[in-house]
Amino acid sequence: MSTNPITATVDFEARGVQHGFLRLPASRDESAWGNVMIPVTVVAGGAGPTALITGGNHGDEYEGPIAIMDLARRLRVEEVAGRVILIPQMNAPAFRAGRRTSPLDGGNLNRAFPGRPDGSATEKIADYFTRQLLPMADFVLDFHSGGRTLDFLPFAAAHVLEDKAQEEACMDAMRAFNAPFSMRLLEIDAGGMYDSEAEAQGKVFVTTELGGGGAARAEMVAVARKGLRNFLIHAGILDGEPEIAPSVMLDMPDADCFTFAETAGVFEPAVDLGARVRAGEVLARVWPVEATGREPVEYRARREGIFAARHWPGLVGQGDCLAVVAEVVEELS
Amino acid sequence: MSTNPITATVDFEARGVQHGFLRLPASRDESAWGNVMIPVTVVAGGAGPTALITGGNHGDEYEGPIAIMDLARRLRVEEVAGRVILIPQMNAPAFRAGRRTSPLDGGNLNRAFPGRPDGSATEKIADYFTRQLLPMADFVLDFHSGGRTLDFLPFAAAHVLEDKAQEEACMDAMRAFNAPFSMRLLEIDAGGMYDSEAEAQGKVFVTTELGGGGAARAEMVAVARKGLRNFLIHAGILDGEPEIAPSVMLDMPDADCFTFAETAGVFEPAVDLGARVRAGEVLARVWPVEATGREPVEYRARREGIFAARHWPGLVGQGDCLAVVAEVVEELS
Amino acid sequence: MSTNPITATVDFEARGVQHGFLRLPASRDESAWGNVMIPVTVVAGGAGPTALITGGNHGDEYEGPIAIMDLARRLRVEEVAGRVILIPQMNAPAFRAGRRTSPLDGGNLNRAFPGRPDGSATEKIADYFTRQLLPMADFVLDFHSGGRTLDFLPFAAAHVLEDKAQEEACMDAMRAFNAPFSMRLLEIDAGGMYDSEAEAQGKVFVTTELGGGGAARAEMVAVARKGLRNFLIHAGILDGEPEIAPSVMLDMPDADCFTFAETAGVFEPAVDLGARVRAGEVLARVWPVEATGREPVEYRARREGIFAARHWPGLVGQGDCLAVVAEVVEELS
Amino acid sequence: MSTNPITATVDFEARGVQHGFLRLPASRDESAWGNVMIPVTVVAGGAGPTALITGGNHGDEYEGPIAIMDLARRLRVEEVAGRVILIPQMNAPAFRAGRRTSPLDGGNLNRAFPGRPDGSATEKIADYFTRQLLPMADFVLDFHSGGRTLDFLPFAAAHVLEDKAQEEACMDAMRAFNAPFSMRLLEIDAGGMYDSEAEAQGKVFVTTELGGGGAARAEMVAVARKGLRNFLIHAGILDGEPEIAPSVMLDMPDADCFTFAETAGVFEPAVDLGARVRAGEVLARVWPVEATGREPVEYRARREGIFAARHWPGLVGQGDCLAVVAEVVEELS
Amino acid sequence: MSTNPITATVDFEARGVQHGFLRLPASRDESAWGNVMIPVTVVAGGAGPTALITGGNHGDEYEGPIAIMDLARRLRVEEVAGRVILIPQMNAPAFRAGRRTSPLDGGNLNRAFPGRPDGSATEKIADYFTRQLLPMADFVLDFHSGGRTLDFLPFAAAHVLEDKAQEEACMDAMRAFNAPFSMRLLEIDAGGMYDSEAEAQGKVFVTTELGGGGAARAEMVAVARKGLRNFLIHAGILDGEPEIAPSVMLDMPDADCFTFAETAGVFEPAVDLGARVRAGEVLARVWPVEATGREPVEYRARREGIFAARHWPGLVGQGDCLAVVAEVVEELS
Amino acid sequence: MSTNPITATVDFEARGVQHGFLRLPASRDESAWGNVMIPVTVVAGGAGPTALITGGNHGDEYEGPIAIMDLARRLRVEEVAGRVILIPQMNAPAFRAGRRTSPLDGGNLNRAFPGRPDGSATEKIADYFTRQLLPMADFVLDFHSGGRTLDFLPFAAAHVLEDKAQEEACMDAMRAFNAPFSMRLLEIDAGGMYDSEAEAQGKVFVTTELGGGGAARAEMVAVARKGLRNFLIHAGILDGEPEIAPSVMLDMPDADCFTFAETAGVFEPAVDLGARVRAGEVLARVWPVEATGREPVEYRARREGIFAARHWPGLVGQGDCLAVVAEVVEELS
Repeated sequence: MSTNPITATVDFEARGVQHGFLRLPASRDESAWGNVMIPVTVVAGGAGPTALITGGNHGDEYEGPIAIMDLARRLRVEEVAGRVILIPQMNAPAFRAGRRTSPLDGGNLNRAFPGRPDGSATEKIADYFTRQLLPMADFVLDFHSGGRTLDFLPFAAAHVLEDKAQEEACMDAMRAFNAPFSMRLLEIDAGGMYDSEAEAQGKVFVTTELGGGGAARAEMVAVARKGLRNFLIHAGILDGEPEIAPSVMLDMPDADCFTFAETAGVFEPAVDLGARVRAGEVLARVWPVEATGREPVEYRARREGIFAARHWPGLVGQGDCLAVVAEVVEELS
Repeated sequence: MSTNPITATVDFEARGVQHGFLRLPASRDESAWGNVMIPVTVVAGGAGPTALITGGNHGDEYEGPIAIMDLARRLRVEEVAGRVILIPQMNAPAFRAGRRTSPLDGGNLNRAFPGRPDGSATEKIADYFTRQLLPMADFVLDFHSGGRTLDFLPFAAAHVLEDKAQEEACMDAMRAFNAPFSMRLLEIDAGGMYDSEAEAQGKVFVTTELGGGGAARAEMVAVARKGLRNFLIHAGILDGEPEIAPSVMLDMPDADCFTFAETAGVFEPAVDLGARVRAGEVLARVWPVEATGREPVEYRARREGIFAARHWPGLVGQGDCLAVVAEVVEELS
Repeated sequence: MSTNPITATVDFEARGVQHGFLRLPASRDESAWGNVMIPVTVVAGGAGPTALITGGNHGDEYEGPIAIMDLARRLRVEEVAGRVILIPQMNAPAFRAGRRTSPLDGGNLNRAFPGRPDGSATEKIADYFTRQLLPMADFVLDFHSGGRTLDFLPFAAAHVLEDKAQEEACMDAMRAFNAPFSMRLLEIDAGGMYDSEAEAQGKVFVTTELGGGGAARAEMVAVARKGLRNFLIHAGILDGEPEIAPSVMLDMPDADCFTFAETAGVFEPAVDLGARVRAGEVLARVWPVEATGREPVEYRARREGIFAARHWPGLVGQGDCLAVVAEVVEELS
Repeated sequence: MSTNPITATVDFEARGVQHGFLRLPASRDESAWGNVMIPVTVVAGGAGPTALITGGNHGDEYEGPIAIMDLARRLRVEEVAGRVILIPQMNAPAFRAGRRTSPLDGGNLNRAFPGRPDGSATEKIADYFTRQLLPMADFVLDFHSGGRTLDFLPFAAAHVLEDKAQEEACMDAMRAFNAPFSMRLLEIDAGGMYDSEAEAQGKVFVTTELGGGGAARAEMVAVARKGLRNFLIHAGILDGEPEIAPSVMLDMPDADCFTFAETAGVFEPAVDLGARVRAGEVLARVWPVEATGREPVEYRARREGIFAARHWPGLVGQGDCLAVVAEVVEELS
Repeated sequence: MSTNPITATVDFEARGVQHGFLRLPASRDESAWGNVMIPVTVVAGGAGPTALITGGNHGDEYEGPIAIMDLARRLRVEEVAGRVILIPQMNAPAFRAGRRTSPLDGGNLNRAFPGRPDGSATEKIADYFTRQLLPMADFVLDFHSGGRTLDFLPFAAAHVLEDKAQEEACMDAMRAFNAPFSMRLLEIDAGGMYDSEAEAQGKVFVTTELGGGGAARAEMVAVARKGLRNFLIHAGILDGEPEIAPSVMLDMPDADCFTFAETAGVFEPAVDLGARVRAGEVLARVWPVEATGREPVEYRARREGIFAARHWPGLVGQGDCLAVVAEVVEELS
Repeated sequence: MSTNPITATVDFEARGVQHGFLRLPASRDESAWGNVMIPVTVVAGGAGPTALITGGNHGDEYEGPIAIMDLARRLRVEEVAGRVILIPQMNAPAFRAGRRTSPLDGGNLNRAFPGRPDGSATEKIADYFTRQLLPMADFVLDFHSGGRTLDFLPFAAAHVLEDKAQEEACMDAMRAFNAPFSMRLLEIDAGGMYDSEAEAQGKVFVTTELGGGGAARAEMVAVARKGLRNFLIHAGILDGEPEIAPSVMLDMPDADCFTFAETAGVFEPAVDLGARVRAGEVLARVWPVEATGREPVEYRARREGIFAARHWPGLVGQGDCLAVVAEVVEELS
């Protein structure tokens, strides 16, 4: 198999604080000998495990990257037992463009794993994580949120896994993160996801969804900062007391949780995120834009639960996900 | 002066409920003999004043248009004393595109008044309001919100006017609307605004800002629905009791209310809308995207007040308005 | 008034056959010192009138330009009594792009008259015709067709004018052109049209509509070739016998001739051009694209007549002109 | 092999009339959890074969889709012996955009077969037809026409196949369709075509070319409606008498049938579709746009026959197919 | 007349070194309350004249802006007698985009003078220079070069003016700048130029052309640095000895200096800039791209002189300026 | 393996001079039955070897293509012993667009080898060279230059190869080309390059870099013309004396030769191409565009040598190659 052309300007084996780049050669019309520069910070102290902390897997999600950039400028080598690798812009071209996918190749990084060393820019990034970075890590935390086209209740999530010991370790780390909501996910179609690759390599893996709409809110950034610190304490890398508050345990057990638009128009949510809804209750209306005097199309909840995610922005296309209703499993405290 | 080519498929003088269009000929590459179709509903009952209710002046603002479309399909002629003209998509091409400005000519309708009958599509729309629709009206309500690039606390607003009797009538109507916040605005640069044209014609004029981020929230749509009904009751057109709750009176007295970005990057609000802030308090940080390990640029409040508006989305450009701090004048109840 | 920067590489006063350009300086990103080059042929023989023959006023209409280019390469000075000025690409940037309007400035040349010497590229072209070329001419023929978004029955047209002697001269020239159909037009909104400027300068002016759909058909090119030769014979510039066949005289007396789409979808014409229709007969259907199993919206003729023009291409937008029904006035033979 | 993510909202095994969608998850910048919605109608009556009727394989071809949408809204379960599956927009994203290929991935569906369940959106659609829909069918009819860049005489076609019994069944079905022209095709390069996949699965397969230029004409829609009904009667699914008229049998035996442009310019067809041409006769001229006074490049027929297809629109690029001359084999009556 | 909305964050009347912005409100889709930020440095010392030094009038010209940015970071208040205003990006939106014209409105700043306070963004910038900045200045130096589409010999230039005393002052300043070449320009069409406005206000005005091709060369930046320092010494603002080398005096007396392309293709210069050419000598060839085996179109010098400017980049469009031949007036030393 | 659909309109086995095309079918929205036309000239005389001469591998490089087009129109069959195949636009769609990569599929031809007969347009071209053209050739010369985003000293190059006899033959041919500079290259990552395919097939292969910046200079075209003739004389195909001048032998032995930008801004080269530099000397500065008064980022040489390549155009992006310093091995004379 060919060699991945990405080179790092940091030495992952060196002790200390290093700020540098993953440099990915990317020849294109705009720069024949250009490179994608993916910022990376490595803080390596004494003996201990390695945590790989990432954001910007999708480029329009900001809450996690802010928390990561904040930690990257603050973390001192004396605080760290082991190693922390911080990469707030996994798909840097997408992040700089404020887009879910890469403007270089249209690639959705979280559908490109395990990647290819001789593939597109996005596939090369995936391959570098698969073959270089994930093998270094014991604990892996990947921040997501709704981006420009969805908005979520803030939750950390872990997946149902075949290896029940690994699953339990992931669930423990998810609970340690301590977002206001926690989600146990049964991934139906995990093809191409970073999550699956990390889990297949046996890592303790946690992901999140923290708001969205394509912009960070202070409340959500606070959830990310607290959760990141809690996660590193849980991993034994940082010292100190975790900050713990109640968290509501959710589940999305079946297809009835999801409502898709069959018509295009103006999207009116009938309730806001966090509302408890009954089966049959109106979740959303889609108003036709062609004329006034017409009825909106109403979409109703097919199950009872909590309004956990919604479409963003104000216009909705046919086929878009309008609303997600999650099941409340228990209230952790 | 030449004739405005817009024709209406409704008869503004007829009694009853009519749903139709303002048809604006717009020859372009995509359609040599094409037209812009602006939906309009007219409900005319017995004797009484005329209210002109508009949304979609900027095409990426949805809260008011939803309330207007909802009223348009519900309102019965028997309920109306006088006449209600409902136009949820003033700048229909912008609204269909989900953009602030028109994709036909780049026009910002709220900077195009009084318009020109032989101008661009946007200028023709402005002229039609100036010379055809505003003269029919006594009460004028124009819904705005932050759109895709700003988010606001929900408020209704009236302007400081030279004619103090007119100003008082506008303030009364603003209070009748009864948004959670109310704003008395001294417009510095009103050139080209619909507001100015309506006020110059002596109308009772109210405008709003109701959220934003380019998507409607249920809470904001509820403010719009309630305020629209209250406004029409206040005008004497609808019967019934207005629904009144406490409202906080705000002011934006000087340039210190506004904070602009001098650097581009990732926008982190340090507080969320509605927070009370002190002078010197950090309002927002802008994180550089080029590298990790760098300090964010901090932006601090130059005055005490309430965090009333913020930048949207997650990336911010040099020169963008980051934050607005409004002065709390009084709490109406 | 400032000077028009267009210069001609031909000498309009010289005897002989000249092929050259109207050169219009157009500084833009792609060429700081670039020019628009508008091909022109001048053939000047002995004493006689001047005919100004144009196509490409809209850049997606090909039938007339082919006939003009064909004449330009064939016409010998000995054949010409007077002068023929041949300009097949009035709006050359639009013509090269295959678009109705100019890619340089979005300008629709036939809405830009009388033009401005210091305006946009399109306005400069209009001004050059208004102040340089039209004053040289006695007879003016401007070829049009439906372009990419309309398809027409082939007709020559002359306008109803205040000066009845001029009107009669125009009608005579239109009849001499001898298209299969002839149209007497009462222009409602002639603002900005080349037609109006030519007529205001007292010229004998004829225009045409010859097919469309954005491509030439052999049948339509033959109409253009024959009509152009007939027109020049009528003007006394060419010698020879005109080629005359029967022509049907049409009129479009009122707004009932035109049908506009109120919904977007797939356009199905129920009859083809040339069909005789009765009032109330279905002219066209618009099929919704969102789903199967739905009824199309039917559009019916509001008057009896001949199906004279239709929408092109297969998808139709709200507000587009679907169909034109013309009144058959008489059959000329 | 992985699972195709497309799900149908209709039950192909249920008796009755169902209108629904094939829902294809398509995560993209515009909608993180968006879906492509492909309309489908299934009408299943008593015992009998299954016909799979498709259009919109290329998204700029309208004649067949109109006939399919019309049948979808009319067909009653009592009329059907067996099952009819109607899909007027195989490549729905291309159809909605009025383009040959998909705006999602640039995919040409008729070059994407047999498809991939984990490929691009277009490849997923191809795979769903290959593995889900074609296996259900006995008779397959796929409507094509020239789209935006070609115009054809109306013909139905069947392919020369290795299995002569299958070939004969296809030829019978083609004759039953009874377009004004019929074509026996020897496909040279069938790689990636739906036709080849249907034939490889042993189906009775007929395709068509019915006009084009990117817009439907009433005459061509009538051919499609009649042919579709005739085809279903021939399949034994509908009852009734087929409507039969004379049809001319054509062939395109070799490369001399095709003429390609070696220069770009304005396209002038010297004859219209349906004309009988001799070898050496001028078929088309290409006029240079740079200047007047130049000779056009003439393209001459390399064989005798009927002018069966031509370039559309009015400008032609180097390498474009200008003209196709077909051999007249026999006149069926 | 309305007020220009641009505000400066520097105080032009204060002594000292200030770095700040001209802030121009620019509401657009990307930022409803956005601003264009134009960097400005003001260094004001003791008594003396004011020099206004600008670059980035066209946004794809880099040599002058580098010299200005370099001076802006170095200049100390003690060095300055009078005041230096340094604005390296007059049309900042164009400069950031690397384009001649503004991406906001397509405006060519050097054709927008004197500007309008209520016009487009580009017109507002022009107006601010006309009404705010130029009136403060005594000496005005505006750096240009060929940008992306031209390449020039390095020269400073002054215009032939009606006021001969002013003309002489400008010529003196041009000679003081001491570029390798000097040009005395008779501006034919000065409409909309900054030059004309500065001269009309009686300023001592010098402009330059220093290379081009859309990129800076070290040699050209050195010319700009030296000339800027010489200019400020000449103005009496900086102390010290000017650095003087020989300069060749050029003239472009008539239209024969300029050669325009009549065909598009690949541009081959037959000689490089600085070559002495004879009348009739081949300056350039344009090779057709459609085929091999064809002759290039040759363009020959219409006068003797020095090859002073050429087209850039490698493809050339019809109407582009291919070559400029200047007359050598004298060799200054 | 499937068949490559490209067909040649020339007969490579026929004696004489032929100008024609490689015709590549490329169905796309703009032309359903369109073709890419790649110009080719074949000159075949008496017995002798075959030389395959190419340019336009990247579409924004003009120096070699001009020399090739010039030879193609001049070469007579009597001059040739053997055969010369001349293809100045390998990636014709990229060449016509003035882009490095193909506008059809985004393909970088020099990363697409060995290609695929059923792949994208770019991959089909690569396959045709791999399987049809290279096998015909003995000597292969591929012209490159810096294109729009780099500028190089003029050099011919040959690669270090495992087969030392082949390497020596290539080095001999490189020396025979006799550019002002000569380069012995150790290709680290040759994946997908035409060079590697030609070398793997055992050909005598030479490549070049001759200037750049996206435009040809007369000096560089002269290098290309002379080198091409010298190369064909060296191959024994043309008769005559080679034209030989001194050449400097260069090497780029390690990563220290290359400097990449870590910040975006305005690019200032501190020296021009050809300058001798010392380790630690400033090569370039990158100026921030956000504000004045800031320090540029300085980039210094990491080794001694000659400044051999630089970034183009004036703005530089993060990750772009700023400068290349080559080692001077010896001065050939």
